[in-house]
Amino acid sequence: MIKNRLKEIWAQGRPSINGWLSIGNAFTAEIMAAQGYDSVSIDIQHGALDYGSVLPMFQAMRASGVVPMARVPWLEPGIIMKVLDAGAYGVICPMVNTAVQAAEFVSYLRYPPHGQRSFGPTRVSFAAGPNYAAEANGEVLAFAMVETKQAMENLDAIAATPRLDGIYVGPADLTFSLTDGRLAPAFDREEPEMIDALQRIVAVCKKNKIRAALHCGTPEYAARAIQWGFDMTTVSGDTRLLAAAAAASVAKFRDLVGQTAGIAEKGAY
Amino acid sequence: MIKNRLKEIWAQGRPSINGWLSIGNAFTAEIMAAQGYDSVSIDIQHGALDYGSVLPMFQAMRASGVVPMARVPWLEPGIIMKVLDAGAYGVICPMVNTAVQAAEFVSYLRYPPHGQRSFGPTRVSFAAGPNYAAEANGEVLAFAMVETKQAMENLDAIAATPRLDGIYVGPADLTFSLTDGRLAPAFDREEPEMIDALQRIVAVCKKNKIRAALHCGTPEYAARAIQWGFDMTTVSGDTRLLAAAAAASVAKFRDLVGQTAGIAEKGAY
Amino acid sequence: MIKNRLKEIWAQGRPSINGWLSIGNAFTAEIMAAQGYDSVSIDIQHGALDYGSVLPMFQAMRASGVVPMARVPWLEPGIIMKVLDAGAYGVICPMVNTAVQAAEFVSYLRYPPHGQRSFGPTRVSFAAGPNYAAEANGEVLAFAMVETKQAMENLDAIAATPRLDGIYVGPADLTFSLTDGRLAPAFDREEPEMIDALQRIVAVCKKNKIRAALHCGTPEYAARAIQWGFDMTTVSGDTRLLAAAAAASVAKFRDLVGQTAGIAEKGAY
Amino acid sequence: MIKNRLKEIWAQGRPSINGWLSIGNAFTAEIMAAQGYDSVSIDIQHGALDYGSVLPMFQAMRASGVVPMARVPWLEPGIIMKVLDAGAYGVICPMVNTAVQAAEFVSYLRYPPHGQRSFGPTRVSFAAGPNYAAEANGEVLAFAMVETKQAMENLDAIAATPRLDGIYVGPADLTFSLTDGRLAPAFDREEPEMIDALQRIVAVCKKNKIRAALHCGTPEYAARAIQWGFDMTTVSGDTRLLAAAAAASVAKFRDLVGQTAGIAEKGAY
Amino acid sequence: MIKNRLKEIWAQGRPSINGWLSIGNAFTAEIMAAQGYDSVSIDIQHGALDYGSVLPMFQAMRASGVVPMARVPWLEPGIIMKVLDAGAYGVICPMVNTAVQAAEFVSYLRYPPHGQRSFGPTRVSFAAGPNYAAEANGEVLAFAMVETKQAMENLDAIAATPRLDGIYVGPADLTFSLTDGRLAPAFDREEPEMIDALQRIVAVCKKNKIRAALHCGTPEYAARAIQWGFDMTTVSGDTRLLAAAAAASVAKFRDLVGQTAGIAEKGAY
Amino acid sequence: MIKNRLKEIWAQGRPSINGWLSIGNAFTAEIMAAQGYDSVSIDIQHGALDYGSVLPMFQAMRASGVVPMARVPWLEPGIIMKVLDAGAYGVICPMVNTAVQAAEFVSYLRYPPHGQRSFGPTRVSFAAGPNYAAEANGEVLAFAMVETKQAMENLDAIAATPRLDGIYVGPADLTFSLTDGRLAPAFDREEPEMIDALQRIVAVCKKNKIRAALHCGTPEYAARAIQWGFDMTTVSGDTRLLAAAAAASVAKFRDLVGQTAGIAEKGAY
Repeated sequence: MIKNRLKEIWAQGRPSINGWLSIGNAFTAEIMAAQGYDSVSIDIQHGALDYGSVLPMFQAMRASGVVPMARVPWLEPGIIMKVLDAGAYGVICPMVNTAVQAAEFVSYLRYPPHGQRSFGPTRVSFAAGPNYAAEANGEVLAFAMVETKQAMENLDAIAATPRLDGIYVGPADLTFSLTDGRLAPAFDREEPEMIDALQRIVAVCKKNKIRAALHCGTPEYAARAIQWGFDMTTVSGDTRLLAAAAAASVAKFRDLVGQTAGIAEKGAY
Repeated sequence: MIKNRLKEIWAQGRPSINGWLSIGNAFTAEIMAAQGYDSVSIDIQHGALDYGSVLPMFQAMRASGVVPMARVPWLEPGIIMKVLDAGAYGVICPMVNTAVQAAEFVSYLRYPPHGQRSFGPTRVSFAAGPNYAAEANGEVLAFAMVETKQAMENLDAIAATPRLDGIYVGPADLTFSLTDGRLAPAFDREEPEMIDALQRIVAVCKKNKIRAALHCGTPEYAARAIQWGFDMTTVSGDTRLLAAAAAASVAKFRDLVGQTAGIAEKGAY
Repeated sequence: MIKNRLKEIWAQGRPSINGWLSIGNAFTAEIMAAQGYDSVSIDIQHGALDYGSVLPMFQAMRASGVVPMARVPWLEPGIIMKVLDAGAYGVICPMVNTAVQAAEFVSYLRYPPHGQRSFGPTRVSFAAGPNYAAEANGEVLAFAMVETKQAMENLDAIAATPRLDGIYVGPADLTFSLTDGRLAPAFDREEPEMIDALQRIVAVCKKNKIRAALHCGTPEYAARAIQWGFDMTTVSGDTRLLAAAAAASVAKFRDLVGQTAGIAEKGAY
Repeated sequence: MIKNRLKEIWAQGRPSINGWLSIGNAFTAEIMAAQGYDSVSIDIQHGALDYGSVLPMFQAMRASGVVPMARVPWLEPGIIMKVLDAGAYGVICPMVNTAVQAAEFVSYLRYPPHGQRSFGPTRVSFAAGPNYAAEANGEVLAFAMVETKQAMENLDAIAATPRLDGIYVGPADLTFSLTDGRLAPAFDREEPEMIDALQRIVAVCKKNKIRAALHCGTPEYAARAIQWGFDMTTVSGDTRLLAAAAAASVAKFRDLVGQTAGIAEKGAY
Repeated sequence: MIKNRLKEIWAQGRPSINGWLSIGNAFTAEIMAAQGYDSVSIDIQHGALDYGSVLPMFQAMRASGVVPMARVPWLEPGIIMKVLDAGAYGVICPMVNTAVQAAEFVSYLRYPPHGQRSFGPTRVSFAAGPNYAAEANGEVLAFAMVETKQAMENLDAIAATPRLDGIYVGPADLTFSLTDGRLAPAFDREEPEMIDALQRIVAVCKKNKIRAALHCGTPEYAARAIQWGFDMTTVSGDTRLLAAAAAASVAKFRDLVGQTAGIAEKGAY
Repeated sequence: MIKNRLKEIWAQGRPSINGWLSIGNAFTAEIMAAQGYDSVSIDIQHGALDYGSVLPMFQAMRASGVVPMARVPWLEPGIIMKVLDAGAYGVICPMVNTAVQAAEFVSYLRYPPHGQRSFGPTRVSFAAGPNYAAEANGEVLAFAMVETKQAMENLDAIAATPRLDGIYVGPADLTFSLTDGRLAPAFDREEPEMIDALQRIVAVCKKNKIRAALHCGTPEYAARAIQWGFDMTTVSGDTRLLAAAAAASVAKFRDLVGQTAGIAEKGAY
């Protein structure tokens, strides 16, 4: 079985950068996989796509050598096992709030005797090469998302889950939940209480010898997160990168030609 | 029938900026349509998509108010009429090299007595509103692409084609063809011979009271083209914007964390 | 954030009419959205479609101004949150039989501090406009389906669920369940025991200041339901409307030309 | 090879009724195929679909026993042969204006020695049964559309084309073209000049022993066309039937509950 | 309602052979349905497909007369009911490990009063014919998969579940689980302990008067299973059959022309 | 630009074996690309697919290292250029009957100054690597199909077309046409007149220093073709391999269990 390069990178003490796909399209996946990320993850939770898009996207990413991962919509065994069979070398599970949930999550990713994953690597066996049955338990990454007040309360127990590889932090939800809706959900928090929470997560991960990952909006914030000890950062994503680049291009044009703005009005083509 | 805003913009003496879609996906279309372009065109010629993607993309763009257009793969009546029925308010036709081809192209976009378009606006009638049969000939834009040595030789005759609305310049092909392959095909030419060609096209368009449009790579070049007299410029496109933004984001991250590059190797995940 | 017009209509004391989509196609969605319904719902439970169809259908409905809603397959958090992110302004959940289930359902639709919905309005933010995070809890409608004997027994408790907006009645399942299979499942019941059940639901809804909605087969029955106090009725749906209209057209033709019927036989083209 | 039932029906002196599919969806195709039509045609010209939809639609119609046909976008050999390989038992070709075009069209549908169709019935061989190579020339119907002034001038020559099975009249285009745009394009013309044209087509078809078919909007008009001698009429189509039935349902509801209309406004959900 | 032929075959004392679809494509489904299987099952669990593929695949299989079935990803009510509404005449559920799970599974397939299936046979009613509501409980097959050590411990209780039709054995998972990962997961086991397990399952099924089914890799092993008393065997599947046939064809060619192997190297086209 | 390995293989004096894809599915493409073929071609002419399937199929084949090619539906520039932009390293064009057609075909595949291909390698540039504009003319293969009596008459002139890389023989059509329909269209002809024709094609190709390729049904016939001098043979294809393997598997099972056949009857599930 082809080895998981993220594990190799981290073993060398290097941080990794993860790309993020919210557009359900194999060509954007192929484009993103060619831009230099170490891994690229398909967001089946909040992305505008479902399993039907995942398979061709993983196929389109295969030749690039990036590590293919997916975030699943919820702690539901059906979709978790399906994305593994489709080719995922890592699964990020949202809203893991207790140690029981963390153990349940891990069990869905591991073959017996370490879990209850069902065997049938119909497509992944083409991409991962021989000996998948014996080696997959050791190569596939399990990331539990810590993003609620409850999860923070159970952080030590979650992090101690056997065969969990890491904790992935969703800062928007975490902010929303920790502040009971007082702070708006967003990335790249500057509030001390949020930075404290992030640093505490890193510390707990290190204590449990698992990896810490953070979803970021900018390379600048991601670089700070690496300094705090995070092993992996996701930096922006396809929809945000595209929208921002297009908006900047239009604004630059309008500025150069002396227009204040377009005159878009609804109801007119 | 809802009016074509590009005609209104140009009538006010304002230039327009056109977005470009090469990804066959309705969500990227909806994203791009929200970034401030005056019009957005789907590239069925070189884009990674065909008619099957065009329809949902036009639907996804409808609410935005941008003018929906399409570049067709070739001077072929089947697809030209299909994109009109699907909702296009303008068609860009590649490789129009003679006046006969230009007249043929226009005939496919116009209902009798001005052309041979077949009537059946099955979907566009939902988006364009009432009275389409009577008004479409006056609202739908016909852009012939001038992008070969032969087309430059026939430029005056092409531009004089009745009911042709404009000439759209493909600078990559034009460069390739004008120099017999000596210069590599690309946008934003700086060679005097190419700038001369562009300016000659503008002059001929103005003489024939039709519009001149140019495919550009950057807002800076587009602003220069506007100064030369172009009425519309396309500035980059979805795939280029996404790839460049992602590559820049990765490079920035690696720079900030002190990595020279990723260590992507084929055959490793 | 664009306001939910159903709430405005009901606030004016007006009943609303809801369209129903069981065909997984963006063009039928665009057609249905243009016929005058106040809202149009995609049936992911019994419709011949899944999430992959929902996204382009919502996009195709966006320009019409109808309120987009969806019925989910089951009380499962993954799909509920995905349809919200895709653009739903209301979710109808089948088989809500207890107050615990009702509370669980509502929690999936509400951001903290009122629920556990995860934040990531990737596509809906394009359609709903700014400030979604702050306003979505107040605009998105939660309809619990009451359609079993058990649900009727728990009706008061279900209707009292905080932040539940209404009860949606599935008369086919309700009939099937209430009569232990004695009566065939169908809409537009005339049996006094069923009409009593419907009227009891309306009364309980009014007592709890939530909305009552009924799935109907005909405008005539829907108008009666409005008189009973229902706030919203779904009237037929795309598949039934199409099949009935086509069958009537064929029958009329055969009658006019003096044919008794077609001579369709299997195995012959 | 399974026989073409349209030929059997006509041989019995009976007229046939044809259904019309403009929605690119296999479920609407299956629904329409169950409503009693003798044949059902997929409109690849003006329908909101292309080849990608044709294949699953033909598959979904197969069990019904209706004769599957298609209208192609234009006189283009690629798509004509592809729809035959996909399962069409008849092809309707738009805008056949001369005898040369008619002969070219027929040649694309016939295997040697009667034409130039290329052999490769990859999918149709599953649906049509054995001996396709030998029998297809005799079972597949070729309908040339007469819908322009030029075609009317060449009517006798077109109708005399060897191995052409019939003429299919597009009344909207024919009206548009015959009156140079004076009359709006529509079905079910009442103007004497148009009825004369239709009756002349029937007469020429009968003289040449080929079939005459007419696209109609209502069963009533279709029944009149049958009286004039047409062998086949298409009556309305999926999009029109659905839109009209839905609009009537909404209007009936609003009328019964005393509403004048919905209060749809753009920009509000 | 059209009867379930598997029940008829078994009632005659005949074993049946089941085909297996892991490719999400309607044409491969149509091809496989024409090869003589008694039933053909779509594998939504390990197959490279999801619900979006199931519907057109069932449509493409309809004309063949084979019994359409599906394996669902997990014991999740949403997808189970959706595949029934889409046309399944049988559902195979993985990882049924306890009698409680078995009863829950059955309840999702049965209408009241025997279960909690929700009524809405939107598509299946076209394929199954009239009276579906009344007869479906008696025609739709419920197969629980026994494939873990836990399930073997609970075998008698599982097999005694009212209205369960049969047990379907997944030998790969069963081997993996029974041996705690000692034996690799695969079909067609020869180890006495595994054959004992299979024979015990047959015995328990016969005692409970339900059917026993086995997933096999070859016809030879399937024939042995029939001798042991299995009522149905799945023999290989589309992906394995295709890959093996293609590989054999290439190997034969290379052998005949005297090549030892291709010289495929990554990075070269 | 990544080199075309077929050219390397042939330069070494080795014959190549080509796989054939008629199923429009990215997973079957990935499976077939892993079976050892030197090249794999997508059949857009007779295959059950169109451009919409080509792109994900090429993506799915990319990692394998096989040379991706496509057969286009007809000598139509739109689709020819689109498959090149999508990633094809070779195009097979059906029904090239004259030297004029051959030259036209080649012109669509070559950039200036050697042809009229339009520049826009939107997707292929990701798969083919840098310098595509300069090198594509030398790497992309142009195969003209000789498959009619007329083509045989023009064989020398066709083979002499500058920058044509080879002739691809379609034996089914060639037989049909050469014998005016007397012999049924099929592969692997044994009639001396057909073998003579094949050998004459090889001789003409060798004289003109271009490649000869033959579509075969079996490895045995392909090996004979190699002995005759063919450089490349296609051996069977996905649909035939799958159908034959499945049918053989079912027959073997029925034989082993003593059944004469299944008892499939239409109308029964």
